[in-house]
Amino acid sequence: MNASNPTFEEMRRVLRELPGPDQEAVTAVVSRQVELTKPPGALGRLEAMVEWLAGWQGRAVPRVERPRIAVFAGAHGVAMRGVSAYPPEVTRQMVRNFLNGGAAINQLAQSIDADLRIYELDLEHPTNDFTRGPAMSEARTANAMAYGMMAAEPGIDVLCLGEMGIANTTTAATLCAALFGGTGADWAGPGTGVQGEALQHKIAVIDEALAHHRDLIAAGDPLALLAAVGGEEFAAIAGAVLAARMGRIPVLLDGYACTAAAAVLYALDRRALAHCLVAHRSAEPGHARLLAAIGQRPLLDLGMRLGEASAAALAVPLLKAAAACHNGMATFAEAGVSSKSS
Amino acid sequence: MNASNPTFEEMRRVLRELPGPDQEAVTAVVSRQVELTKPPGALGRLEAMVEWLAGWQGRAVPRVERPRIAVFAGAHGVAMRGVSAYPPEVTRQMVRNFLNGGAAINQLAQSIDADLRIYELDLEHPTNDFTRGPAMSEARTANAMAYGMMAAEPGIDVLCLGEMGIANTTTAATLCAALFGGTGADWAGPGTGVQGEALQHKIAVIDEALAHHRDLIAAGDPLALLAAVGGEEFAAIAGAVLAARMGRIPVLLDGYACTAAAAVLYALDRRALAHCLVAHRSAEPGHARLLAAIGQRPLLDLGMRLGEASAAALAVPLLKAAAACHNGMATFAEAGVSSKSS
Repeated sequence: MNASNPTFEEMRRVLRELPGPDQEAVTAVVSRQVELTKPPGALGRLEAMVEWLAGWQGRAVPRVERPRIAVFAGAHGVAMRGVSAYPPEVTRQMVRNFLNGGAAINQLAQSIDADLRIYELDLEHPTNDFTRGPAMSEARTANAMAYGMMAAEPGIDVLCLGEMGIANTTTAATLCAALFGGTGADWAGPGTGVQGEALQHKIAVIDEALAHHRDLIAAGDPLALLAAVGGEEFAAIAGAVLAARMGRIPVLLDGYACTAAAAVLYALDRRALAHCLVAHRSAEPGHARLLAAIGQRPLLDLGMRLGEASAAALAVPLLKAAAACHNGMATFAEAGVSSKSS
Repeated sequence: MNASNPTFEEMRRVLRELPGPDQEAVTAVVSRQVELTKPPGALGRLEAMVEWLAGWQGRAVPRVERPRIAVFAGAHGVAMRGVSAYPPEVTRQMVRNFLNGGAAINQLAQSIDADLRIYELDLEHPTNDFTRGPAMSEARTANAMAYGMMAAEPGIDVLCLGEMGIANTTTAATLCAALFGGTGADWAGPGTGVQGEALQHKIAVIDEALAHHRDLIAAGDPLALLAAVGGEEFAAIAGAVLAARMGRIPVLLDGYACTAAAAVLYALDRRALAHCLVAHRSAEPGHARLLAAIGQRPLLDLGMRLGEASAAALAVPLLKAAAACHNGMATFAEAGVSSKSS
């Protein structure tokens, strides 16, 4: 990677080199699983989660001791079109709130003892309004991807990704429609809370963007679409997902905007998100459609729609519990428990 | 309560005196909720969980610092009918495993920093085979309820309830059918893993019990049914739920057997479980039917079917996170964040 001047071509090269899971670690987990003092399969998805952790960490004894939460904040030109219930300056105000410890994600990070990092993209210079042209140049997009890659530092066990950016459910909906087809109405939802006429306006803005970029959408290059109708925090999240894969760090994806960012990689290569789990099914209706498009079943379903990596943080204790059971339980032989009689 | 000789009449007296939620605490939570730096409702069910915690703890600032996990182990006469994939002695072996720290619940308790207590009922003397007579006398049932009440000690913030008892999904299914109607086939499932002919046999055993007790079932007294087709750990869990209500301790119910035990109280009084949340939808199919019967929507859905309070423990970090967000977040005014423009 050329740090000073990353390009899409370099990102494509990374994608061609994605490592698969460590099959030895997975096999070790599967064999131990059946020896543990519980009926086979009785821990349900926790058992699959341990296999996933082991495979992507490359450790037969997976570890969830050093989770990191990375929140990327971006400013969207399309916010000037009045698509959010909040004014655009809230993005910077919320970043200050993150830095002062007052947001939901601060409390969640503390409650799971995670390292929380806030990554600000260029908030002084919002992306362009993508109803009238591309949101970003290739250079700006690739730069944001490279910036996001920094979040996947060695030594982290699990990386929770999330975002903040007023208007970014509009961006997410537009990007999803560009990647997977459909219209504004298929992918738009209340976001921070727009309803009725305001929601109709949001849908119209998305459809305007889709019409403007129709030739590019037909051409179907996911990275070009990320630049055209994405946002900086989307590019950064895509970069973080890629870097985590290279660094053997399993990823928890948060809500709609975060999953949409990762879906750019899925559109490039269907194996690109195998090291990611979606933490939660967002109340934002487009998320369910997106989950179906990328074949993910979320871990939680609690009606949240906040972003900030809040739901990703909430899923960390599930991974911790799954690993704790697997690593700490006695086997039937060790415990002197009779195994299945049938 | 007469400690040496509890009776159903005393339990009924407790049920008539059940306190409601602390409305002042709920109101305080609801008013603070709208001031916090997030779109209204964006934390989804976490917001309702905080109201529930506050109401049942009687604190405007709810607390999840001292969770207790109580696992009740009981021995079932019906286990001799070969309804489980494991031999009856596994109940005592698993209790030893709990005491030695080798079971799933030990790892889960440690991972959430909870106080874990194992409550053994009279494992040397299994209940009677309820296909041929009542499982227990009123005295034994009421004694087990009183024993269970001890789990709800003052100072606990949240009480996680669970059980261990080979054959107790047969007991749960029989008890559910007795309380809510239906047949063995409606309420039985694989439990520890019985399938095919073995499952048909389990269903036949349940139907045999339902036929034997048909007059009592028609009479419809839930406590009499608990004695007739329940088990000691079921009675103890019902007692713990009652005592927690009196002691202002919110309760997390675990899986099928645990919810069936609590459902005895629901059948006595529909308000009796208002201080309880079901942690998880068990993979045991009867649980979904039971949840519908008592009007509960579980917090998690991870395909687990272990018991031992394992899923209840898994839900504690969700409550902790909900309380942490509520108690620790800045308000819009404190953080200088612009509120909703619409």
